Amino acid sequence: MRKIAVIGSTGSIGTQTLDVVRQHPDQFVVEGIAAGTNIDLFVQQVNAFRPKKASIGNKQLADQIAPLIPAGVELFYGEHGLVEVAAGTDADFVLSAIVGSAGLPPTLAAITEGKTIGIANKETLVTAGHIVTGLAKQKGVALLPVDSEHSAIFQCLQGESLDDVEQITLTASGGSFRHLTREQLKDVTLEDALKHPNWSMGAKLTIDSATMVNKGLEVIEAHWLFGLPYDKINVLLHPESIIHSFVEYRDGSVIAQLGTPDMRIPIQYAMTYPARFPSASKRLSLAEVGKLHFKEMDYERFPCLRLAFECGKIGGTATTVFNAANEVAVARFMKREIPFLQIETIIETVLSRHIPQQEADLETIQAADQWARAMAASL
Amino acid sequence: MRKIAVIGSTGSIGTQTLDVVRQHPDQFVVEGIAAGTNIDLFVQQVNAFRPKKASIGNKQLADQIAPLIPAGVELFYGEHGLVEVAAGTDADFVLSAIVGSAGLPPTLAAITEGKTIGIANKETLVTAGHIVTGLAKQKGVALLPVDSEHSAIFQCLQGESLDDVEQITLTASGGSFRHLTREQLKDVTLEDALKHPNWSMGAKLTIDSATMVNKGLEVIEAHWLFGLPYDKINVLLHPESIIHSFVEYRDGSVIAQLGTPDMRIPIQYAMTYPARFPSASKRLSLAEVGKLHFKEMDYERFPCLRLAFECGKIGGTATTVFNAANEVAVARFMKREIPFLQIETIIETVLSRHIPQQEADLETIQAADQWARAMAASL
Repeated sequence: MRKIAVIGSTGSIGTQTLDVVRQHPDQFVVEGIAAGTNIDLFVQQVNAFRPKKASIGNKQLADQIAPLIPAGVELFYGEHGLVEVAAGTDADFVLSAIVGSAGLPPTLAAITEGKTIGIANKETLVTAGHIVTGLAKQKGVALLPVDSEHSAIFQCLQGESLDDVEQITLTASGGSFRHLTREQLKDVTLEDALKHPNWSMGAKLTIDSATMVNKGLEVIEAHWLFGLPYDKINVLLHPESIIHSFVEYRDGSVIAQLGTPDMRIPIQYAMTYPARFPSASKRLSLAEVGKLHFKEMDYERFPCLRLAFECGKIGGTATTVFNAANEVAVARFMKREIPFLQIETIIETVLSRHIPQQEADLETIQAADQWARAMAASL
Repeated sequence: MRKIAVIGSTGSIGTQTLDVVRQHPDQFVVEGIAAGTNIDLFVQQVNAFRPKKASIGNKQLADQIAPLIPAGVELFYGEHGLVEVAAGTDADFVLSAIVGSAGLPPTLAAITEGKTIGIANKETLVTAGHIVTGLAKQKGVALLPVDSEHSAIFQCLQGESLDDVEQITLTASGGSFRHLTREQLKDVTLEDALKHPNWSMGAKLTIDSATMVNKGLEVIEAHWLFGLPYDKINVLLHPESIIHSFVEYRDGSVIAQLGTPDMRIPIQYAMTYPARFPSASKRLSLAEVGKLHFKEMDYERFPCLRLAFECGKIGGTATTVFNAANEVAVARFMKREIPFLQIETIIETVLSRHIPQQEADLETIQAADQWARAMAASL
């Protein structure tokens, strides 16, 4: 019986994590769940899984749902609640799946308690990669990737030596606007952006996929997860998203992980690692797929990805600022305040005004984050 | 320093094995080589690598080249010579790369001496899989695949548990006649058959690739190498031969091995396993390849593959007879005695007249082999 806690239980990854638990009721028990504002689903989940601890976004929501929470479930809220759920239960596996930089404090708390982490929150590693990986190393804690690309790389590294890795390649579908030129991108709407071709995912992630910021965050995440320099990390356009990513070894051999676009597979792998459990997920049939396409990444077409590599190489607070500026820019696009292409203009402008600080502590990171958010909001 | 012996040094796999040695002169030393009739190349190899023991096809050839063999190299010939080279040196790795059933005695001798075996000779496992794998298990000897497909599967299994394997899939280019209908196959010539689209390989192997007998032998080989039942082994048409083969795990995740069509990669992997050494082989660029195609295997179009699965499931001497009948039929096609499609008619007819014997010993296998050859020659 594996005891788990889920931070971000009502989001896309969170609900699919609980799907995996439902498929293997004899293998997993849910010790804690935490969510933001989706109280209806949260109350359902609490009643279905009866965790010891549960946490919702704020006090007002907590007060509102308190009567609906069954006895035996301790209800928390806010930042403190996230930490309670992440670090204050018997869970030995914590799935960190909140979107945005809010995932950092509970993740650090869980690592401190020696819990294995399933990392579905990119921002944790993007904003504080050196702190998170440093603490994990110190505590002997495994950081298991949940993103399909990183899970793919992780699976391709099993039984191999990192020393033998020549390079890794993350595949990118190209997002909802992959067929458009930069000229055509000028007029795209929020509705256009939200149609992702392959994966069903949250709204912010879908926008990030169209700007290729998401792939940029994945590159930075891969750097931290696998300890690889940026010149060993590549991105390849692969519209079908069937090959989730691959590793090239120094003998020229390439090991790839493939599958249907079903996040429950990488989620479950992180939850059962190093074992593999059966899964009811649809099987990949390459004969049915028929063709796979690949194209060199175009860094002119997708400047945010170029910026991500640059920030990664600069290091320090540069990646924090990249991420924070993007979060604000995407929020503004989703509020229809700015056109699509201004997302990248904002990121680039904020970065150009930032003086990166190396080996930053949490306070410095937070300051850079706040500075970038204010700057991005003002542009 | 790894000490190696190469059985079949002048063939396609043998010469590429020695290429790998040339690329890593500080890592490998050649203790023995054995060849058939290509005396010019054999003499060159003996002079270049100065093995302790060397063996050529027969006494006449041995007498002819004896003056050209440097001092310190012991020269042998024939079946006895193969065994001397395979089992009578300090080599800890023996590459078994003779085409045909002649590879069996030296391979068994090398296993008996506890040497790790690189299996490039399919017939060894096809004709005597239960004996070879049984002896290897008893002696604690590893049988490492060299065929690109089996090496791919083997690489995809690293760090995983066989219990988690749902199925494996061997890819098949479809051979030189993949675009032809069965009607068009009636008139193909030897010259047509010898043009293999992707791999540079020996003549017999190229014919076997066009009839799909080669893939059938690989299916049987995979059964023995990985201990998998036939219903867990699939074949998929993949004209580009870029994905060399793949494993599907029970969670729905697929791990594949990819590469350029360069046999030196799987050969070197077997020689350096579990490590990977650098290689000068051309790197795979999926962006350059652009597209990969996949198609369900057509067992009507390729009846020899269907026959191979049937023989495999029947077991015992059935696979020996399948292989022997094919060897004779291909030889007759190469002597222009029979048309291309008669290869499969001969195999099918010989099999229909054979009463398979289970758990056959070497004598029984040899008798079945000889019976099948005589029968195939007479049809």
